[in-house]
Amino acid sequence: MAIIVKKFGGTSVGSTELIQNIARKTAQETRAEDSLVLVVSAMAKTTDELMRLAHGISEHPSRRELDMLLTAGERISMSLLSLALQNEGFDSISFTGSQSGIITDTRHGNARILDVNAFRINQELEKGKIVIVAGFQGVSQAKEITTLGRGGSDTSAVALACYLQAGRCEIFTDVAGVCTADPRLVPNARLLPRIDYAQMLALAYSGSKVMHPRAVEFASKYQIPVEVKSSFTFAPGTLIHTYNSAKGNLMEERNITAIAHKEDLIRFELARDAKLGGLLEAWNNEIFKYAVKEDSIELMIEGKYATDAAHLLQQHGIEPLAREEKIGYVTLVGLGINLDPGFLARTLKICADLRLRRVQHSDMTIELMLPSDQVRDCVLKLHTAFIGDEP
Amino acid sequence: MAIIVKKFGGTSVGSTELIQNIARKTAQETRAEDSLVLVVSAMAKTTDELMRLAHGISEHPSRRELDMLLTAGERISMSLLSLALQNEGFDSISFTGSQSGIITDTRHGNARILDVNAFRINQELEKGKIVIVAGFQGVSQAKEITTLGRGGSDTSAVALACYLQAGRCEIFTDVAGVCTADPRLVPNARLLPRIDYAQMLALAYSGSKVMHPRAVEFASKYQIPVEVKSSFTFAPGTLIHTYNSAKGNLMEERNITAIAHKEDLIRFELARDAKLGGLLEAWNNEIFKYAVKEDSIELMIEGKYATDAAHLLQQHGIEPLAREEKIGYVTLVGLGINLDPGFLARTLKICADLRLRRVQHSDMTIELMLPSDQVRDCVLKLHTAFIGDEP
Repeated sequence: MAIIVKKFGGTSVGSTELIQNIARKTAQETRAEDSLVLVVSAMAKTTDELMRLAHGISEHPSRRELDMLLTAGERISMSLLSLALQNEGFDSISFTGSQSGIITDTRHGNARILDVNAFRINQELEKGKIVIVAGFQGVSQAKEITTLGRGGSDTSAVALACYLQAGRCEIFTDVAGVCTADPRLVPNARLLPRIDYAQMLALAYSGSKVMHPRAVEFASKYQIPVEVKSSFTFAPGTLIHTYNSAKGNLMEERNITAIAHKEDLIRFELARDAKLGGLLEAWNNEIFKYAVKEDSIELMIEGKYATDAAHLLQQHGIEPLAREEKIGYVTLVGLGINLDPGFLARTLKICADLRLRRVQHSDMTIELMLPSDQVRDCVLKLHTAFIGDEP
Repeated sequence: MAIIVKKFGGTSVGSTELIQNIARKTAQETRAEDSLVLVVSAMAKTTDELMRLAHGISEHPSRRELDMLLTAGERISMSLLSLALQNEGFDSISFTGSQSGIITDTRHGNARILDVNAFRINQELEKGKIVIVAGFQGVSQAKEITTLGRGGSDTSAVALACYLQAGRCEIFTDVAGVCTADPRLVPNARLLPRIDYAQMLALAYSGSKVMHPRAVEFASKYQIPVEVKSSFTFAPGTLIHTYNSAKGNLMEERNITAIAHKEDLIRFELARDAKLGGLLEAWNNEIFKYAVKEDSIELMIEGKYATDAAHLLQQHGIEPLAREEKIGYVTLVGLGINLDPGFLARTLKICADLRLRRVQHSDMTIELMLPSDQVRDCVLKLHTAFIGDEP
C-alpha cells in the first residue's frame, strides 16, 4: 500500500468550485493501489473572517476560545472536500486534528507538535477510504483543542507523511512550485525542478512564501521528500529533498540558486534593558530579522503585524527609540557563495544605483536591505545577472 | 570491494612516530575485503616552513612557483606513509594530486576542483594495493600543478570518496570529533555521535575547526557521509550525514546542538567606493564576516591574515576608516531556534554581564559579537544553560 499525503492550502480550497476541481483531479490521477490522505486548510478568508468576528466581541479574545472558533474553519473545508470526493464515487471520511492524533503542547494559537499517533487514519486507509484531515489543528496533552500557528497546515501534512511512512508528500498551493525568483516580480523566473532542504530553508526564512520555514524544518529533520505543486494544474512542481547532484562531474561550482525577497517591513528600535526579555518571551508574531546592538535591539517585522506589535510594546511599557516603515530585503541563496568574495563584489556592482543600506551574509546567503520600493528593481537586476533570463 | 577513504591531517602525520602509528592502527583495523585510499596532508609545520623559505627569497613569490614548492610537502608525508605501510607488510603506492586525477581551475594557491578522474587509483586498488594520495593538490586544465587552498585536503578526500563511490570517508584529525563546544574551552563538552550537514556547515562557518566549510559543502552537495575521528585513538568520532532522527516521536523540538566560537578577529572598516570591488575580487584570504552599511563596509578577518590584508589594502590604495583588534564571536547552532524569540531572550539574560556588542541570526544560528577575552566565559555560560554539563 503506497500512502500519499496531499495538502491543499487556503487559496486551493477557496471556493466550492475549487474544491470540486480538487476532487476531480484527484480522482483522475489516483491509482487503485494508492492510499490517500488529504490535509486541508480552512477556505481562504474563512480564518480572517472568524478572527474578525471574534475581535468584534472582544479586543483581546482568550486564545483557548479563539482556537475553538478557528478550528471550525477546517471543519468546513474538510467536510466539503469529503462530500465532493463522495460525488466522484470515492469512499471518504474526514477527521479533525484531534481525531487524527496530532498531539501538541498547550500553547494555544502557536502550539508545537509533540507527537503523532494517527492509528485511526491507518484503520480507515485499510478499509480503502480516502482520509481527509484538518490541517493546522491538534489536541494538547490537557485534551484541549489547539492550533499550530503559522505554517501549521504544511507542518501537519509533513508530520502525518512521516508517521504514516508515506511514499510521497505533496503540498498543493497557488503557485507552480519554487522558482528562481517570485514570478510576480520576475516574469522570466524559472521553476526549480528540485532543491535541497538547506537552501529551501534559507529561501523560506528569507521571504519565499511557497512553504513555511517551520514545515521545511520538520521535513528536513525527518527527511520527508516534499513536492510543492499547483493545485490548479496539478502539474509537476518542485521536489524538496536531500539531493544527490549528478556524480558525473564533481565540480566545486558556486552558483546562485534563487533569490527571495520581502517587502513592507517595519523596523523597531528598542532600548536594551530589563523589560526586553519579557517582551521577547511573549512575542507571538514572526520576527523577520533581529539584531542586537551596543545599546539597542532592532526588530524587523512584517507590516501586517504592526498593530499587534504596538499592543505588545505597550503591554510591556516599552517606548520604541525609533520606528521606520517600508523596508525591503532581497536575499541571494546559493551554496558556497560566501567562500568567494567575488559574489559580494558583483552584487555591489549590480546594485550600484540602488540604495543598499546594509548587506550581510550567512553561510549560504547574501542579504541586502534596501527601501521596499527598490525591491522589484533589485530582484530583476540580480536575476538577470546571476541566473539569466533565458527560458 | 568496499572502498574506504581515510584522510590524515597535518598534525596526524606530524612526525615519523605518528606516521608509523597510523600505519600500525590501519593494519589492525583493515579487513581483507577493504580497499583503502589514504589521503594525507603535509606534515604539520612543513607548509609553514616552506612558506618561510619562499618568503626569505621573495616578498611576494609567484603563486605558480609557490604551488610547485608547497606540493613537495605532501610528497614527503605520502611517501613516508607508504614506506611505513610496506613495513607493516602491505603493498602500497603513493600518488600526487595530479596522478590521482584531481582536475582544477588555474587559480594557483586557491584552485577549485572541476572534475575528478581517478582511474589510476581504481587500477591500483584492483591490484590489491593501498593507495596513498597527496591531499591539497591538483592539476589544472593547463597541466600546471595547483594547490586547493584552505580546506583543500579534506576536500580532496571527500571528492575522491565521491568519485570512487566509497562506502565510507573518514577524516582523521587531532580531536575526537565534533563536540557540543570546543573541549579546550568547555571541559564538559560532549562528543556528538552524529550531526547533519546543514548544522555542521553552520558550525564550520562559525569557527569550529574540525572540518573546513568548503569540505562540508562538497560532502553535503554530493551526499558523502563523513566520519571525523581521532588519529591518535582511532575511536568512533562524529558521523556527518543527512540524518533521519528516530521517527518514534515526531517532535517539533528546538534545541541548541552545539556552540562554535572564534577569537582574535580584526575588524576593518572601509569606505564604500569604486575601489572596493577590485579589492574583493582580489581578496585571497577568508573573510570571517562582512557587513555592508550605508557608507562603509566592514570586514572581519582572522588575526593571522592581518599582514596579508594590510598589503592588499595598500595595493588597492585603500586607507581603512577604522581598524580594531581582539574581537570575538560565539555562535549557537540549532534547528528552528529563531522561530522562537525565547531563545534570544534567554541568551541575552545568560550573557547579561558580558559585553555583547551585537547579536545577529541566520536560520539556524544566533551569533554574538563580543570582546575576544570574554569568549571563553560566554561559551561556558551558554553551554551550561543550553546544553548542560552532565557527562
